[in-house]
Amino acid sequence: MTHLSDIEIARAAKKLPIQEIGAKLGIPAEALLPYGHDKAKVQQSFIKGLADRPDGKLILVTAINPTPAGEGKTTTTVGLGDGLRRIGKNAAVCIREASLGPCFGMKGGAAGGGRAQVVPMEDMNLHFTGDFHAITAAHNLLAAMIDNHIYWGNELGIDERRVSWRRVMDMNDRALRDIVVGLGGVSNGFPRQTGFDITVASEVMAILCLARDLDDLQERLGNIIVAYRRDRSPIYARDLKADGAMTVLLKDAMQPNLVQTLEHTPAFVHGGPFANIAHGCNSVIATTTALKLADYVVTEAGFGADLGAEKFFDIKCRKAGLRPDAVVLVATVRALKMNGGVAREDLGSENVKAVAAGCANLGRHIENLKQFGVPVVVAINHFTTDTEAEIAEVKEHARRHGSEAYLCRHWAEGSAGIEELATRVAEIADSGRAQFAPLYPDEMGLFEKIETIAKRIYRAGEVIADKKIRDQLRAWEAAGYGNLPICMAKTQYSFSTDPNLRGAPTGHTVPIREVRLSAGAGFVVVICGEIMTMPGLPRHPAAEAIHLNEAGEIEGLF
Amino acid sequence: MTHLSDIEIARAAKKLPIQEIGAKLGIPAEALLPYGHDKAKVQQSFIKGLADRPDGKLILVTAINPTPAGEGKTTTTVGLGDGLRRIGKNAAVCIREASLGPCFGMKGGAAGGGRAQVVPMEDMNLHFTGDFHAITAAHNLLAAMIDNHIYWGNELGIDERRVSWRRVMDMNDRALRDIVVGLGGVSNGFPRQTGFDITVASEVMAILCLARDLDDLQERLGNIIVAYRRDRSPIYARDLKADGAMTVLLKDAMQPNLVQTLEHTPAFVHGGPFANIAHGCNSVIATTTALKLADYVVTEAGFGADLGAEKFFDIKCRKAGLRPDAVVLVATVRALKMNGGVAREDLGSENVKAVAAGCANLGRHIENLKQFGVPVVVAINHFTTDTEAEIAEVKEHARRHGSEAYLCRHWAEGSAGIEELATRVAEIADSGRAQFAPLYPDEMGLFEKIETIAKRIYRAGEVIADKKIRDQLRAWEAAGYGNLPICMAKTQYSFSTDPNLRGAPTGHTVPIREVRLSAGAGFVVVICGEIMTMPGLPRHPAAEAIHLNEAGEIEGLF
Repeated sequence: MTHLSDIEIARAAKKLPIQEIGAKLGIPAEALLPYGHDKAKVQQSFIKGLADRPDGKLILVTAINPTPAGEGKTTTTVGLGDGLRRIGKNAAVCIREASLGPCFGMKGGAAGGGRAQVVPMEDMNLHFTGDFHAITAAHNLLAAMIDNHIYWGNELGIDERRVSWRRVMDMNDRALRDIVVGLGGVSNGFPRQTGFDITVASEVMAILCLARDLDDLQERLGNIIVAYRRDRSPIYARDLKADGAMTVLLKDAMQPNLVQTLEHTPAFVHGGPFANIAHGCNSVIATTTALKLADYVVTEAGFGADLGAEKFFDIKCRKAGLRPDAVVLVATVRALKMNGGVAREDLGSENVKAVAAGCANLGRHIENLKQFGVPVVVAINHFTTDTEAEIAEVKEHARRHGSEAYLCRHWAEGSAGIEELATRVAEIADSGRAQFAPLYPDEMGLFEKIETIAKRIYRAGEVIADKKIRDQLRAWEAAGYGNLPICMAKTQYSFSTDPNLRGAPTGHTVPIREVRLSAGAGFVVVICGEIMTMPGLPRHPAAEAIHLNEAGEIEGLF
Repeated sequence: MTHLSDIEIARAAKKLPIQEIGAKLGIPAEALLPYGHDKAKVQQSFIKGLADRPDGKLILVTAINPTPAGEGKTTTTVGLGDGLRRIGKNAAVCIREASLGPCFGMKGGAAGGGRAQVVPMEDMNLHFTGDFHAITAAHNLLAAMIDNHIYWGNELGIDERRVSWRRVMDMNDRALRDIVVGLGGVSNGFPRQTGFDITVASEVMAILCLARDLDDLQERLGNIIVAYRRDRSPIYARDLKADGAMTVLLKDAMQPNLVQTLEHTPAFVHGGPFANIAHGCNSVIATTTALKLADYVVTEAGFGADLGAEKFFDIKCRKAGLRPDAVVLVATVRALKMNGGVAREDLGSENVKAVAAGCANLGRHIENLKQFGVPVVVAINHFTTDTEAEIAEVKEHARRHGSEAYLCRHWAEGSAGIEELATRVAEIADSGRAQFAPLYPDEMGLFEKIETIAKRIYRAGEVIADKKIRDQLRAWEAAGYGNLPICMAKTQYSFSTDPNLRGAPTGHTVPIREVRLSAGAGFVVVICGEIMTMPGLPRHPAAEAIHLNEAGEIEGLF
């Protein structure tokens, strides 16, 4: 057991030079573009040369519905990577990059925790290798080109009231949510109402994370719908000739970032799309590159399995042709107790009955994940307050749902605490048992796809949508977008659209509030509930306490 | 002679690994934070350890008033650095970083030209090492904290009508010049009118470029005036507790960037403040670091000598305690002809009389520079159309003004073409002839400082300013800002405030339109004429043609 904080552990870590981490995957030093001594990008040209190699095994880490008690999905992803290395496997980890802005609101998110972390932590929560800044620049170049086109005569006939492309900033700035631009007279353009989203909500982020290579990136950027004419016909980024310059701005950002875990396991940290209006996974290019270089690639998806894993399978795997070999479903006794109705302040005392009740949530996720044809193992991320009886209860439930659960102590012990799970996951991945298939075929109608997700994954009784929304979906089908997958945006806290409905509800109603077409990323976003795409700062932002101490270290960020 | 374009020459260059460039200055590899193989930041801790070393000689490259004919100031800075190395001197170059946004409007600016360039050119015109993105983030964090403070109750009593801190973006986006933020109801804050400037116009940029170290940086950031109360008392960034977090965001950006010239001379490329509302020089920390590591440091200042050199001396050298040893004044026969009244289309034919007339501008600059106690040498940046008689005329004029002129062919020949100038500049720098003193003492009144610059440098007859402006200057003096230097913002094309008045006008009037206090950077900006702090894109932005070619190279950027 350790009593050090995550940041203390991370700072005490002895990092290897990034070239040595690359060497573990057979990446020659000249194919690594270093950013300092502990970060690097893997060069595009090197990645191109890997095409003919066989792929390693792909392992997804997902979780039960999140609660304030914490599940430790990233911690388990990192720990499992370290555990696989410990038992002699050539493993790599793939996770998302963090957004800079929110770190100045609430405390910054670490990459994992305890003895299962990715480093350098400070860099990863600040500018890192500049990917998000590049996305911001590419997004805002397109925005500037739209208003500039209107300014110089509007040859394309853009309806200024129907410009859907907003601007982005990697900052929590509520004052920018809803703004009027172009004031001040003739030389500043035509006034119109618009706003800023946070960078991770940009469609450019989703595109970068789904693009197979630079050509595919440019193609998708060109496909972005930026506005409509008065006759409702769409105007694409390509029509503004913005796709080439955006690709140039994103050229470096498309190269996956390599860092390391505390135990020197290679970790790709690349891309970070929103998990609600986007698909919430690290980049396709990082995952496919890792699969060429490692025998086992451990990756994760955002939120709980109902949202994150479903999108991982139905969007990322479908689009990139990935075939996952195993799923690890992370649960904690504490989170299961909360799903079983226990209040946060009572989590410290044993309550096997509540664990059993909460396991309904666990069981539902196991059943769901099996629908995709991928074997599921449960990782019980250990807390010191867990009792033997509670752990036994979880294991029993997993068994009853045709799965198996392993207690994991990677947070406290690093790879030594997760050997059993790592061994079993490697066996399952090697067994060839997985028969992955997405939940629905491309050809299914858009509304039917939504119903399929809602009924088979959320176990809803019905999906309700007014005529306007159904008409919109039909119009997109007529325009050739019917083959796109669905990207659901709903609360992460419940299978239903009610965040307070924990456990395993059935027969509920899923109301669709809005649908959006991300024609560049290649999915239809279905919004069920309030989605905030530009956060605000709290009354006392973390920024007030963030500073450099006398040793030049960052204080207050974590 | 070469017939290759700048970008073709730059691409054909065989770059040395950046560690080898660092080694030329005695920087150990572990003190370099690489960004790829050809860029690096010099680590803060290494820089701290240099404090007790002696300083090298400091050489400023400036120019006559710019014309569309081109002077080649950066080209000469780079060429002179290479020339000094050629004659066996340990030399380094210090220049500014380029802004990304404008490259998507007009074609991007190269760093030098011909055989006298700094590489990698593409990176330097795009994200480079992320410094400008960090400045954007720090600037906008402060902006978000202002509106957030008002949102949560406005304890400091900010007058929402008097928030002077705007937001910034590294993009040419005229629609953002004048905007209303905080629309959309209660949860988005209080609507107010504001706008965006381009990042290089940020006071944070000027501060980063004037700060001696991280402590000084934080002190200056805290001093920024962001708004006023109803009683007109100022509110500082420090009052919002933003200075610590801004410093954290700028920690890496404060480390100077090292790259190389085509001839492998070490080049520090760091910082890039506007040359009108700011002082237009590369960072103090890059210059002071270079002076500890090289025997000769060649640097440049923005615009012509009347603006750029004056600010270099009176702001940068004064604040940083720098003592320049020599000045190189760049002129071309073509630009002198234009100063002598020749139209651009007639520059190809010999016209000794026009050269003689234009030399009035050259002579004035020589006289002015001598007022600062620094010896001046003229570099005639050679064009193939120059005739012997024209060159002889320039040399004679320089001699008559107590200076000396050398023909330089570094554009076509690299260091071989600038040996004579390099040898002479080294001699002068070594001679100890320089007796640098700024133009005016700190103690002089603000309006008197303005008059001193206008009369002694611009040779104006009078400075006119209405009562409001004079009162404002007096108010700042009363508030303790009277000891600050002046940062003049006027046209670069003339000694006067009329851009069409070439040559060496006298007795003109300098009207002050506006004064601004940059309390963090530490100067008073005096605006004479229109100053644009957010450019727009042209009818056909360069972005439309920018793309990656099949070899993955960037096309259309240059």
